[in-house]
Amino acid sequence: MSDRGPQRPTQHTVSDDPATILQQPPGLTPVDSEFLRELGQQLRVDSVRCSTAAGSGHPTSSMSAADIVAVLLARHLVYDWSRPDNPNNDHLIYSKGHASPLCYSMFKAAGAITDEELLTFRKFGSRLEGHPTPVIPWVDVATGSLGQGLPISVGVALAGKYLDKLPFHVWALCGDSELAEGSIWEALDKAGYYGLSNLTAIFDVNRLGQRGETEYGWNLEVYRQRAEAFGAHPVVIDGHDVEQIDAALSNARRAVGKPTVVIARTIKGKGFSEIENKDGWHGRALPPDMAERAILEMGGVRHMTVQTQKPEPAGARHAGPAPQAPRVTLPTYEVGSKVATRKAYGDALVALGRLPDVVAMDGEVSNSTHADEFARAYPDRFFEMFIAEQMLISAAVGMSVRGYRPFASTFAAFFTRAYDFIRMAAISQANIRLSGSHAGVEIGQDGPSQMGLEDLAAMRAIHGSTVLYPSDANSAAKLTAAMADTDGVVFMRTTRGAYPVLYSADEEFQVGGAKVVRSSDRDQVALIGAGVTLHNCLAAADRLASEGVSARVIDLYSVKPVDKDVLREASAVTGGRFVVAEDHYPQGGLGAAVMEALAGDARPPRVAHCAVRDLPTSGRPEELMEAAGISGGNITDAARTLVNAERFETAGSSQRPGQGGVPPEKGGN
Amino acid sequence: MSDRGPQRPTQHTVSDDPATILQQPPGLTPVDSEFLRELGQQLRVDSVRCSTAAGSGHPTSSMSAADIVAVLLARHLVYDWSRPDNPNNDHLIYSKGHASPLCYSMFKAAGAITDEELLTFRKFGSRLEGHPTPVIPWVDVATGSLGQGLPISVGVALAGKYLDKLPFHVWALCGDSELAEGSIWEALDKAGYYGLSNLTAIFDVNRLGQRGETEYGWNLEVYRQRAEAFGAHPVVIDGHDVEQIDAALSNARRAVGKPTVVIARTIKGKGFSEIENKDGWHGRALPPDMAERAILEMGGVRHMTVQTQKPEPAGARHAGPAPQAPRVTLPTYEVGSKVATRKAYGDALVALGRLPDVVAMDGEVSNSTHADEFARAYPDRFFEMFIAEQMLISAAVGMSVRGYRPFASTFAAFFTRAYDFIRMAAISQANIRLSGSHAGVEIGQDGPSQMGLEDLAAMRAIHGSTVLYPSDANSAAKLTAAMADTDGVVFMRTTRGAYPVLYSADEEFQVGGAKVVRSSDRDQVALIGAGVTLHNCLAAADRLASEGVSARVIDLYSVKPVDKDVLREASAVTGGRFVVAEDHYPQGGLGAAVMEALAGDARPPRVAHCAVRDLPTSGRPEELMEAAGISGGNITDAARTLVNAERFETAGSSQRPGQGGVPPEKGGN
Repeated sequence: MSDRGPQRPTQHTVSDDPATILQQPPGLTPVDSEFLRELGQQLRVDSVRCSTAAGSGHPTSSMSAADIVAVLLARHLVYDWSRPDNPNNDHLIYSKGHASPLCYSMFKAAGAITDEELLTFRKFGSRLEGHPTPVIPWVDVATGSLGQGLPISVGVALAGKYLDKLPFHVWALCGDSELAEGSIWEALDKAGYYGLSNLTAIFDVNRLGQRGETEYGWNLEVYRQRAEAFGAHPVVIDGHDVEQIDAALSNARRAVGKPTVVIARTIKGKGFSEIENKDGWHGRALPPDMAERAILEMGGVRHMTVQTQKPEPAGARHAGPAPQAPRVTLPTYEVGSKVATRKAYGDALVALGRLPDVVAMDGEVSNSTHADEFARAYPDRFFEMFIAEQMLISAAVGMSVRGYRPFASTFAAFFTRAYDFIRMAAISQANIRLSGSHAGVEIGQDGPSQMGLEDLAAMRAIHGSTVLYPSDANSAAKLTAAMADTDGVVFMRTTRGAYPVLYSADEEFQVGGAKVVRSSDRDQVALIGAGVTLHNCLAAADRLASEGVSARVIDLYSVKPVDKDVLREASAVTGGRFVVAEDHYPQGGLGAAVMEALAGDARPPRVAHCAVRDLPTSGRPEELMEAAGISGGNITDAARTLVNAERFETAGSSQRPGQGGVPPEKGGN
Repeated sequence: MSDRGPQRPTQHTVSDDPATILQQPPGLTPVDSEFLRELGQQLRVDSVRCSTAAGSGHPTSSMSAADIVAVLLARHLVYDWSRPDNPNNDHLIYSKGHASPLCYSMFKAAGAITDEELLTFRKFGSRLEGHPTPVIPWVDVATGSLGQGLPISVGVALAGKYLDKLPFHVWALCGDSELAEGSIWEALDKAGYYGLSNLTAIFDVNRLGQRGETEYGWNLEVYRQRAEAFGAHPVVIDGHDVEQIDAALSNARRAVGKPTVVIARTIKGKGFSEIENKDGWHGRALPPDMAERAILEMGGVRHMTVQTQKPEPAGARHAGPAPQAPRVTLPTYEVGSKVATRKAYGDALVALGRLPDVVAMDGEVSNSTHADEFARAYPDRFFEMFIAEQMLISAAVGMSVRGYRPFASTFAAFFTRAYDFIRMAAISQANIRLSGSHAGVEIGQDGPSQMGLEDLAAMRAIHGSTVLYPSDANSAAKLTAAMADTDGVVFMRTTRGAYPVLYSADEEFQVGGAKVVRSSDRDQVALIGAGVTLHNCLAAADRLASEGVSARVIDLYSVKPVDKDVLREASAVTGGRFVVAEDHYPQGGLGAAVMEALAGDARPPRVAHCAVRDLPTSGRPEELMEAAGISGGNITDAARTLVNAERFETAGSSQRPGQGGVPPEKGGN
């Protein structure tokens, strides 16, 4: 259990109920209460106004939570609106991102935006988008894919408790519909396990989802029992009673040992009797005439401003990186020795551990991904997420919010479990590094469930992503270091098997680069691989050489962005004869990366594509690669066919146009 | 609440505890008990033998559950091993798929495979793969990605209770590590909500995960409280006491109103004292000398065979399709009228409802996807999964196991939440149809969190998948019908906005087809689109025509498989000048589909690629498409540039080689 790191709580017993968090908070004066009710009405009125001006949006989902947000903003949130980067600021994440009218109305009430800007909601060019994004300085992460804000809040709270060790509190406002997402329970499980008393989840139980009643309607007891069973302290309140809200939030902030879940019974559309608690009003702006009646009923337009409690002033957001960054000495490997790239990842991660802002987390497979090396070296900065990949990504995103450089690892195949979270991380402008081991048929006997065979396609399609796939240990170590300095979603695919080290330790590798491993001016064909298939390409080049065919070999270790220059030069020399070999399904991976790179050129290359076309089985890696058509022999065959096939010439010769035969392609998919 | 369909349980109260399920089961005789213990030892010995023969695998994870499986097989499982298609057979799903040695040892004990075959485990060519797959006739679905077997079991049980109405029972064997997956709780939530007393989940709590202790070790009380809070009846037992196991399974089979969760305290590696309850033995075969000692300690090799209780003989697996399939009359739409393709999907799904094996489910957005039309017409065959996309896919897979034709729908973006489940569905050879609405920037004001912009890449990379993207209502209706007759994972992307109907209702569309919407022998460029961009391509063709440029327009509604012939002909006519326009990120989508299709040809086309390169925001659809570079104007510009650019000629003329300039590309990604 040493790999859990220090300061982890002992396993919580769900029945323990610390009386300390139940102590009575100071009460509200009647004046306070009246002010809070007024503020709630303003938030409602503004939610109606901005969504009606936009002609779309979610006013009713905002109105249900308006009283909660009024009390939170005026009395509990600690936040300096002029200094959103103050490390002592609380975090407030709208897990129910569709309550953006409420979020933006809150910004107005805090004096952060003007009423005029509020009314630009959802208009082209406005930063007040349909769902919140970090284009807005007071928004930590993009939400709108339900069930993600709470897990990310857990990540932020983990950073707060175990890394920053600062007293800020994390508040997550959740809708009741999203409580059906498993990710909510992954999140509460980890919040309970790690004893995150600095986290409060608020469930806005307004009973109505998009197309009707939620699973449990106003059965708050169901949520109470679940929250308790998952290690949180549940508090059930009337979400429109400002005194109850105030007491609950006050207790939540002072909780010890456990996160708090405030379960608030609310009314959708609260404040406007025509639509209160009525079905059919989800995600609909009120028409102007109704909006007018609503505003009237809620007491008219107000422009109150709230002074939020400010935190202590503070310097940088977290400890590192220090002004004089410590020297990182990467591991090196002897050329020809056999080392798995996943091992090099682990070794390099330990080296990067000298940078105090580098943190790591893993999905209970750290002895496979080699993240366990970091866990042993830096237990304070390693977080075991167990088999919960959605929470794995969310923890990384949460730590990115706090300015850390998170490295998350699991099998390449299992990052697909969190694909929606990775998609949203890109919209959140999060900087997360992902290492996916055990990719492709190369893993062998474990069979297809464990083989990442669509990961390159999926990761390439993430906005602004970087996709790396090194073939040897020295390049893997260098690229792991490059990941630390690369923003956005950065994915590295590592290999299970140990293969010969190809490059000397002083060779340089960068994001967007490629290596020409073998070349001559007379190359007739280019063999392009990455990871395990680069080794197969080298074997093929040997065989082809013995047949008198000169083959260029390219290590396309940076799958996105791709090195167009190296590809173009290879195309020019070989007359556009490419064999691309990848341990991946044929769609969207290395082959597509090559094709997309040069498709706009006057003469795109002709590509013989060796990829995994049939559903793989179990077997030895070499058996499976041969069966899949990506072995050295398969690549040799494809290259030979291509060299003999029609193509445009490398010198300006006349030729007839037309479509030649396609190099051999195996099987289906 | 009418859309929930009939026969749904009233909302369960987690505290109710039906005494009926606690009645005493008939006890075991001492002879019975001794036999069961012996059978458990045989399963252990065989798990050790086959994994040692393979040199890999998970014997210790098998040994912990051996007694449970022995009792289940000998006394509770109702299964005809000679007739795996008997509709009255129970289902036993190894959610902990890595316990495959146990699963296969069970097959031997049932007389389904020989001892000789057992020893082919994990060898190339054997059907006994590292994790179970349906290549084996007694395996329903592939497992090995943890946390999926239980949700799929819920899908099977839903079919059993609400569709088949047969008394078969569904047993899911879960590991304790996978209980950290949110999907487990999504599954139990739905099992509780739908009152699936025909489902028993067995938690094999052996305390040890892959790299150390699990989150809660042997704290069975945590699991008990969680299972109860999620609507199940929890039973805690000693998983090595055959009497306790027998009583628990006996009660589980007779449960009413609720699913049962048997929480069994077990010992990893049970039976071999050298490794019992020891860390470091996950996923490791015993070396031959240890295996010998283990077999000796466990009493040697046995070849007992168990007569499993057989179900009533029965005919077809479910009611439909009837011998004389009812006539399906698809909806039709007038050319020029404006209809969203998601609406056509909903209309067509209602029409397909005449086929009694067509079922549908949705992720609480049926009024957006238009699945609500089916829910109203066929409430008995519609299943509301609420906002739980992993369970949405699992329900579809479970119904596919029972021979139904499931159609699952949500926003295209939110299928990414279940990407790992879709990946595994392909390995499971499941036949599931997915309709993803609200794709791309075309959705407008809701912003990027709701925009499917990587769905085509992700879905194309699924093994054996079909990807459809119709541009008008008549083609959408025809393709919805085609989905019903297409095996594997079939995805259709539908559009939020209403666009003009382009095709007459008698036009035919098929999987793998494409439509040449405009053409002449003099076409200088081909504009290729699908969905909303086809309309933009048509607008561009009009503008180009006014400039004297003749453009072919291709509706690539079948994105996978793609119609190579139509593309090749267009390339030949236009000298390989293609503009591909897609409302998707540039990687792996429509553009890649075109490039991959022709990349092996002697002269691949030159592709100007209009795709979404910058992170979109909120705005009107036309504003966002223009900003993304995929509007009619953008396509016109790209085509004009391409027509004026260097290219190989359509008649056999001499030309110089080289790489021309790339057509304009906007922004990053």
